[in-house]
Amino acid sequence: MIKHALNVTREGDFAQWYQTVITEADMAEESGVRGCMVIRPWGYGIWERIQRLLDDRIKATGHENCYFPLFIPLSYFEKEAEHVDGFAKEMAVVTHHRLIHKDGKMIPDPEAKLEEPLVVRPTSETVIGAAFSRWVQSWRDLPVLINQWANVVRWEMRTRMFLRTAEFLWQEGHTAHASVAEAREETMKMLEVYRSFAEECVAMPVVAGEKPENERFPGAVSTYSIEAMMQDGKALQAGTSHFLGTTFSSAQDIKFQNSEGQQELAQTTSWGMSTRMIGGLIMTHGDDDGLRVPPRIAPWQVAIVPMLRDNDEDAALIDYCKTIQQALAKQYAFGEPVRALLDLRAIKAVTKRWGWIKKGCPIVVEVGGRDMAGGNVSVTVRTDLYKEDGKLNSAIVAQDAFLADAVGTLENVQKALFDQAKARADANIVRDVTDFAGLESYFEKAGKFPGWVEVEWAKPSGADLDKVVERLKALKLTFRNVPNDAAPATGICIFTGAPAVERILVARAY
Amino acid sequence: MIKHALNVTREGDFAQWYQTVITEADMAEESGVRGCMVIRPWGYGIWERIQRLLDDRIKATGHENCYFPLFIPLSYFEKEAEHVDGFAKEMAVVTHHRLIHKDGKMIPDPEAKLEEPLVVRPTSETVIGAAFSRWVQSWRDLPVLINQWANVVRWEMRTRMFLRTAEFLWQEGHTAHASVAEAREETMKMLEVYRSFAEECVAMPVVAGEKPENERFPGAVSTYSIEAMMQDGKALQAGTSHFLGTTFSSAQDIKFQNSEGQQELAQTTSWGMSTRMIGGLIMTHGDDDGLRVPPRIAPWQVAIVPMLRDNDEDAALIDYCKTIQQALAKQYAFGEPVRALLDLRAIKAVTKRWGWIKKGCPIVVEVGGRDMAGGNVSVTVRTDLYKEDGKLNSAIVAQDAFLADAVGTLENVQKALFDQAKARADANIVRDVTDFAGLESYFEKAGKFPGWVEVEWAKPSGADLDKVVERLKALKLTFRNVPNDAAPATGICIFTGAPAVERILVARAY
Repeated sequence: MIKHALNVTREGDFAQWYQTVITEADMAEESGVRGCMVIRPWGYGIWERIQRLLDDRIKATGHENCYFPLFIPLSYFEKEAEHVDGFAKEMAVVTHHRLIHKDGKMIPDPEAKLEEPLVVRPTSETVIGAAFSRWVQSWRDLPVLINQWANVVRWEMRTRMFLRTAEFLWQEGHTAHASVAEAREETMKMLEVYRSFAEECVAMPVVAGEKPENERFPGAVSTYSIEAMMQDGKALQAGTSHFLGTTFSSAQDIKFQNSEGQQELAQTTSWGMSTRMIGGLIMTHGDDDGLRVPPRIAPWQVAIVPMLRDNDEDAALIDYCKTIQQALAKQYAFGEPVRALLDLRAIKAVTKRWGWIKKGCPIVVEVGGRDMAGGNVSVTVRTDLYKEDGKLNSAIVAQDAFLADAVGTLENVQKALFDQAKARADANIVRDVTDFAGLESYFEKAGKFPGWVEVEWAKPSGADLDKVVERLKALKLTFRNVPNDAAPATGICIFTGAPAVERILVARAY
Repeated sequence: MIKHALNVTREGDFAQWYQTVITEADMAEESGVRGCMVIRPWGYGIWERIQRLLDDRIKATGHENCYFPLFIPLSYFEKEAEHVDGFAKEMAVVTHHRLIHKDGKMIPDPEAKLEEPLVVRPTSETVIGAAFSRWVQSWRDLPVLINQWANVVRWEMRTRMFLRTAEFLWQEGHTAHASVAEAREETMKMLEVYRSFAEECVAMPVVAGEKPENERFPGAVSTYSIEAMMQDGKALQAGTSHFLGTTFSSAQDIKFQNSEGQQELAQTTSWGMSTRMIGGLIMTHGDDDGLRVPPRIAPWQVAIVPMLRDNDEDAALIDYCKTIQQALAKQYAFGEPVRALLDLRAIKAVTKRWGWIKKGCPIVVEVGGRDMAGGNVSVTVRTDLYKEDGKLNSAIVAQDAFLADAVGTLENVQKALFDQAKARADANIVRDVTDFAGLESYFEKAGKFPGWVEVEWAKPSGADLDKVVERLKALKLTFRNVPNDAAPATGICIFTGAPAVERILVARAY
């Protein structure tokens, strides 16, 4: 019987387990400001790795970073009715620009009221569209390929760390093109960037596909997503890519003269990935001992813990550990120097060990006096934590052998995390449900953590679709997406009985 | 007579020249949102380089990055009177969390008024102090060494791109320590990080020193700055480091048990550098042909422009340029791979050339069919733009020779920019003014672009200092700082006639 590091298990209480991982891995905490969290160094370090690797891919596909204002005048939103209605309910509004003292308190100065209130950006299509309208005159100015890393605010009433917070961090790409074909190609290209980034870097298997009409981004013609299966079987939308057609170009007047000399509206896209990805990482890779971070996005890939004893040997031990750290830093894993930390904090070595395990550092190296004397190190690999007898699987190996194997071990951990998640997702997508009763019965019988069901449907629209969505809602289910690589439909729609046109995923979701 | 690329000179109209450089180098533009700018790719690319290099130095000195909320409840500010008074006049205040339609317009929903208004952070001492009070219990928890990269808002009435904008980007470091000595050491360490970063990376010579009492950050015990001399002789404060004593720890209750078991207040510091640095970069290195970017912070260090002719030779020409680009990317300058761009935009080669010159790309390489045939390239170095006869100084050199020299050329450009700015600053600091009349007379006679005057003073305080500040204000002058390496005072205070205690810089300033 293994005694795990956390006091709650995934099986026992998944929601509580999620919060416990965040706390025990020092990733984030409540800030005291409603709906906003403090992202602590280990959580932010993961975000910095996500930023670095995703930014490289965004730049490699020809996009440049810019920065646009945090504040958006109300009038910008009024131009695009569907878009503003999609966000109006959750907008933080700035109305004053000065505070004054009154009765011993600070209040907004009634004399310093803004003529036009400003919205704190929930997303930046409107303000970036206004810039595009200045930048685009001729077909020669197209495409415009822009990205921004920024904070955005959506005033959510029920928040949950990383998954749904009033303020969150993200990147939002915005592009303008001369033709529908080119804009659609961009939309799919960035969906593929998200898919490959999620799978290759975060080791998170995802299903890329198109969202149904009711799940579209406000103002979009088509919305695509990547969806990941969490360990409780729920789906997490981990990135979206939108073809916006001329919705924003007509509202913001993004016009160009085409090569025949005629005025045309540009076709635009937008796409985003956020700190929500970190919530997905936790629920994909965490276990009952805490987080497990894929080496490519781990702030530190190796933590080196000298077993200091406050005696004469300590200096030699630290030197020995430094040699290992420097040797690791000269090696390359995934095309970057290995990131190895020497942990010299003034706390007990065993506390450090379990701290790094709970944080999910891929490799923990401990070195005591006896290890050093024998030219050895004690190595614990996060994906292989326990022996069969339930004891911690720390192996004493020669320093040279450890150094020779380190990069290979990191590659193995990256692969093992992906393979485990992939096997779990594959095993939990059901494709043989052929009627609505079968759908109900699957979710009744599937137990605590049901998977996803891929069904055939006739893709109803408008009020007909609303009815279907309501029926799903009664079962706490939602449409996820129509997988790009789904098999063709051959039967009838499980909702309407009409001939089916495609296959769509149904699941509980975050 | 050289015909320069800009239609305005520094000598002719410095303020207009500054705006023109920003526009012609595609760095930023008005956003349509009051006081906020759009930072365009070349401007943002420079900021990304600043971030990368400064972040490396912040981490190398033991700090970790975190992220704290954008919004700060009013009650947090009320705890620290001097601090809130320092910022109250320029705070953006969020009062509502929803919009509704009314009479065909969108308005803040009166039903969705916040119980407690939220301030958009002008700086984060209060909200980070609240976190520190949770994190710090014992001397073992100290020091806490944190940094954040974020946007902040100060509602400035008169704005100027990069120098003074309502929203700006910065990093703000915040630390807590067990003793005054340690916190003061941290304050000076980060001042030195700023000094070395400014001089080594931005090639911007600065004077590091302590601000006088009237220029302290609201709530600080001591404020230090780096000050840079712009080409119009004005001073720009380019970074600040504050020793905050127990101002914020007493307001936010940051207490710890010391090793003797007694409760003590922590000693805190904060320090920041912002997008203002980009304004300083322009006014330090720009010339009448546009910007000149030091290679270490140039987004692209080499721009390669093939002279395409829409004919059969184009493909070979592009291949030839790609070979050069790849050969450059394999070389290292300043410890990083050389950043070389192949410019394939559908515009004329001559427009590209002058575009890169105005952007200040350190090296522009042009390649025509004849160059290729001879195994040559045409090279223009931004710091050596014109020949004696006023013609553009583009040299045709063998490809091999260019590649062999490229890193050395980048190093030379970095050094030349620093040396030029350093010589100018050194030549324009006057140290022989010994009375107030002499100060007045210097600024009367110095002409359009006066330098700085370092004078001896008695360091008056309170109301006595206010009087001195008023006298300076009448001359449009301000105190900058007491240089760390100033000579000792030996005479009398030029303001009060009392024995002087130190030497302080007086200047016009941004």
